[in-house]
Amino acid sequence: VSGAPLAIIAGSGSIPVEVAEAARAAGRRVFAALLSGAARAEDFAAFDSQTFGLGQFGALKTAFEGRGIAEVVFIGGLVRPGLADIKPDFGAVRHIGAVIEAFRKGDDGLLSGILAIFESQGFRIVDPLAVAPALGADRTGPLGRVKARGEAGAEIAEGLAVIKALSPFDVGQAVVVESGRPVAIEGAEGTDGLLARVAEMRRSGRLQRDGGGVLVKAPKLGQDMRVDRPTIGPATIRAVAEAGLKGIGVVMNGVLIAEKAKTLALADELGVFIEATP
Amino acid sequence: VSGAPLAIIAGSGSIPVEVAEAARAAGRRVFAALLSGAARAEDFAAFDSQTFGLGQFGALKTAFEGRGIAEVVFIGGLVRPGLADIKPDFGAVRHIGAVIEAFRKGDDGLLSGILAIFESQGFRIVDPLAVAPALGADRTGPLGRVKARGEAGAEIAEGLAVIKALSPFDVGQAVVVESGRPVAIEGAEGTDGLLARVAEMRRSGRLQRDGGGVLVKAPKLGQDMRVDRPTIGPATIRAVAEAGLKGIGVVMNGVLIAEKAKTLALADELGVFIEATP
Repeated sequence: VSGAPLAIIAGSGSIPVEVAEAARAAGRRVFAALLSGAARAEDFAAFDSQTFGLGQFGALKTAFEGRGIAEVVFIGGLVRPGLADIKPDFGAVRHIGAVIEAFRKGDDGLLSGILAIFESQGFRIVDPLAVAPALGADRTGPLGRVKARGEAGAEIAEGLAVIKALSPFDVGQAVVVESGRPVAIEGAEGTDGLLARVAEMRRSGRLQRDGGGVLVKAPKLGQDMRVDRPTIGPATIRAVAEAGLKGIGVVMNGVLIAEKAKTLALADELGVFIEATP
Repeated sequence: VSGAPLAIIAGSGSIPVEVAEAARAAGRRVFAALLSGAARAEDFAAFDSQTFGLGQFGALKTAFEGRGIAEVVFIGGLVRPGLADIKPDFGAVRHIGAVIEAFRKGDDGLLSGILAIFESQGFRIVDPLAVAPALGADRTGPLGRVKARGEAGAEIAEGLAVIKALSPFDVGQAVVVESGRPVAIEGAEGTDGLLARVAEMRRSGRLQRDGGGVLVKAPKLGQDMRVDRPTIGPATIRAVAEAGLKGIGVVMNGVLIAEKAKTLALADELGVFIEATP
């Protein structure tokens, strides 16, 4: 609801504060709930904010209710916690069984379990791109000045097909396609690890020096679009260039772009394309 | 045909000579065609053998025909060559167009293209496990003394489902499943690289110290079983143990096991299970 207060449960990275700024620019009163060890308080100095440990669901709920908050955005990075990292407060204790159950089900399961707890308490989880659409790939075609050429279009399609095929599994949403075949698929190592591996295969000669290739990032089929969206940013552009890839294929409205202006300028500078498909 | 002469086109590793020995033990006259830079002549001192460069198809064909050979096994490792590595001889020149076409299609395409050339010249490609069934997982259940316990069975099934989902793509045939989800999927880095990555994620804390987990190796659906079978061996067992995994899931008659007796003894020693599913 435009104008209604909004809570942002913030993990690491620049995206949470960007979403907070976009929400405020759209006329919303923002409360930033910073996850301890992930979000930095100084980044949110301009916002009403408070830091919470994992498990302080009772305190979080009290803070939200005191501000009349019904809508919540989950955004930013969070290293998958161990069960021991979660110190439940009094308000969280009754949900502990559900959290333990969720932990058994991998990242997807953990996240859905936590969202279900918030929803059971009357909060609505909002897609960050609904709050800040300009932070995504908000149109199709090349987002910067560099265009995808030659086989890149077919390779993006191949990468999207791999991500689609892996949708039933709780596994990465990124793949590198080169010379017409997938050469690296993201697992628990994350996109940084994936791109470092491609760079290493390039150095060792396992991938050809001038192979080109593309990084494809897209949400899985059936993914909860309100959380855990694939993200790219300046570090992705640099790693793509270092891995000897020609560019990045994304899906329109499917990924978040951290520091978008900087990311696109860097992509132009390094000759990396960012191509959004419908 | 039992007793008929057999050619073994040998790449690197111990498996080619093991297949040659098994074929000879079964009463066949063996000719070992050693791929230059991959197979070592000294390993085949006990066999009629000759070394061929990539592209010496004319010489190979002459050698086969002089020995009355109609059946050929392709076996062993070969780093994917670049087109420039192939020096066609006179007998190969007419197939160059087909080879270049095959190169465009990734590993699967390259291999099928080369097989098609052999077949067009009247040779029959034979499954190495048909020649040497004992080199594979020739029964179901634990192959060594260590048994798969707890969630391992479900994790093997999950890994097989991932490999099945990836079957349409020219990509690896190995996956590591841990805590119920795929954490690493093999691409062009190969199984050694896959397991090194799991070990690294274990060290960095991205995977839990005592996570367990299994390596699953199986042929893709629709894979040409006569070539490029997934293989495990002593180095796989060591890498699995170093990666903190509990064992290996394979499919009966689906993988080759290099130095089988040594592999099973090492698995017993390191507490690694090898479980073959039907």
